[in-house]
Amino acid sequence: MLDLWYSEKWSEDTKFSIKIKEHLYSEQTPFQKIDFFISNEYGRFFTLDGFIMITEKDEFFYHEMITHVPMCTNLNIKKVLVIGGGDGGTVRELTRYSSIEKIDMVEIDERVVRLSQKYLPFTADKLSDSRVTLIFDDGLKFVKNCKNEKYDLIIVDSTDPISVGEGLFTQKFYEDCYRILKTDGILVNQHESPYHENYAKEMKKAHDKIKDIFPISKVYQFHQPTYASGHWLFGFASKKYDPVIDCDTISWNKLGIKTRYYNTDIQKACFALPNYVKKRLGY
Amino acid sequence: MLDLWYSEKWSEDTKFSIKIKEHLYSEQTPFQKIDFFISNEYGRFFTLDGFIMITEKDEFFYHEMITHVPMCTNLNIKKVLVIGGGDGGTVRELTRYSSIEKIDMVEIDERVVRLSQKYLPFTADKLSDSRVTLIFDDGLKFVKNCKNEKYDLIIVDSTDPISVGEGLFTQKFYEDCYRILKTDGILVNQHESPYHENYAKEMKKAHDKIKDIFPISKVYQFHQPTYASGHWLFGFASKKYDPVIDCDTISWNKLGIKTRYYNTDIQKACFALPNYVKKRLGY
Repeated sequence: MLDLWYSEKWSEDTKFSIKIKEHLYSEQTPFQKIDFFISNEYGRFFTLDGFIMITEKDEFFYHEMITHVPMCTNLNIKKVLVIGGGDGGTVRELTRYSSIEKIDMVEIDERVVRLSQKYLPFTADKLSDSRVTLIFDDGLKFVKNCKNEKYDLIIVDSTDPISVGEGLFTQKFYEDCYRILKTDGILVNQHESPYHENYAKEMKKAHDKIKDIFPISKVYQFHQPTYASGHWLFGFASKKYDPVIDCDTISWNKLGIKTRYYNTDIQKACFALPNYVKKRLGY
Repeated sequence: MLDLWYSEKWSEDTKFSIKIKEHLYSEQTPFQKIDFFISNEYGRFFTLDGFIMITEKDEFFYHEMITHVPMCTNLNIKKVLVIGGGDGGTVRELTRYSSIEKIDMVEIDERVVRLSQKYLPFTADKLSDSRVTLIFDDGLKFVKNCKNEKYDLIIVDSTDPISVGEGLFTQKFYEDCYRILKTDGILVNQHESPYHENYAKEMKKAHDKIKDIFPISKVYQFHQPTYASGHWLFGFASKKYDPVIDCDTISWNKLGIKTRYYNTDIQKACFALPNYVKKRLGY
């Protein structure tokens, strides 16, 4: 029996490993190295430059939390910009809202999308929804050049701030997001983890920038067992709405959207951060 | 340079590893194998039969959440029984309440206590508090033979339901806990994890038993990055008080207890469970 393990360094002194049935596919694109695996427990999963992006077992934790928290805050969201998110999981959750009219997805690496469509239909199968426009471009450049477009919601579903993801953690990028959002617009972004020093440093830097730009800027947490430490964060920034005070849990529940992680008790609870996290964020 | 790694199987197909500076001490007791390690990132940590019990880096997550949630629910708690918890971290948190008059700690393996006092002073140093009575006995037997004693709070700070921890997950044990609690008594217990099948099975079994005995029975969650999946649970069972409705957050905050993980927003938030966890619990 082949004893094959995928390993990822969560920090210099921490390693997380998954037993592999098959290394399905590998490709070096102009942007990054993409690998697809099959494991017994986690099903299919893929990595970019040796970091797990999603696994079939727990991708819904991430995709539900990045989508339903802003949607429950403003159920009138009609026009959404997704930056990154090439596996399609975030778009899949967005398409569950019949009220959403337009979803622009800007992914720098077309190969991530095409390979996800081939190997990860469970996340990618709604990329063909008629409301979705796929744009293969650098997110940083896209928001800079975006003139007349105004979005209700921008979701930054990015990798860590290394290589292709780096520009999506800059002051300039957040300022452009602010500019192309409507007067009640919301920005949600992948916000790293508070636990390991290497990730916590990036968490703090991102938060410092966003809170200087948006009048409302919060951080919310969830469990993501296949990401470093299992303790992960999203940023919620907004021009008008507070996700705890202004969320409309009654109307959200009336929509009848069936979720496996998210619920409206979590909508409020996820903003209650441990003291050590608040301290690291500079509260 | 010595490249030494401690590894733990979180499931058949999942492995978590910590780089070790030194394997400090090892001992086989009549009950279990105890090992102490030093690592750069996690500081000192110890294992029982090859499972991490606590690390210096994140033990406060666990010990604060097992203690302050019941204490904030009833600030009149005076008499506490701790079962297990040989490292002393739970007792350390309890001794921060001047209102507590008596703490009985029943630990089956005296060597865990003595070695923790030697190697883990950061958790064990309050075991010498004058209110603490150390009893080296089987917790299952202790509660069975306990006749006239009545406790306000029982905390079951146990290992997983294998080997020495097994009896602390039985119907008989929970029934005896119920019997020796006052009419407004609270039971908090280590409740495993919802994520990996092997742990989730035990979570469900424990909850099924407890909810048959106690009128109020809930489960709450927290992040524990050095435990399987990083997503861990405690059970809260009670004869009278609901931890969300009856908690006295204003009075708790007036006590001025400085915590690093717990706060009174988390008191309420930690009971908001993801849908998949509720489903696995049978809700």
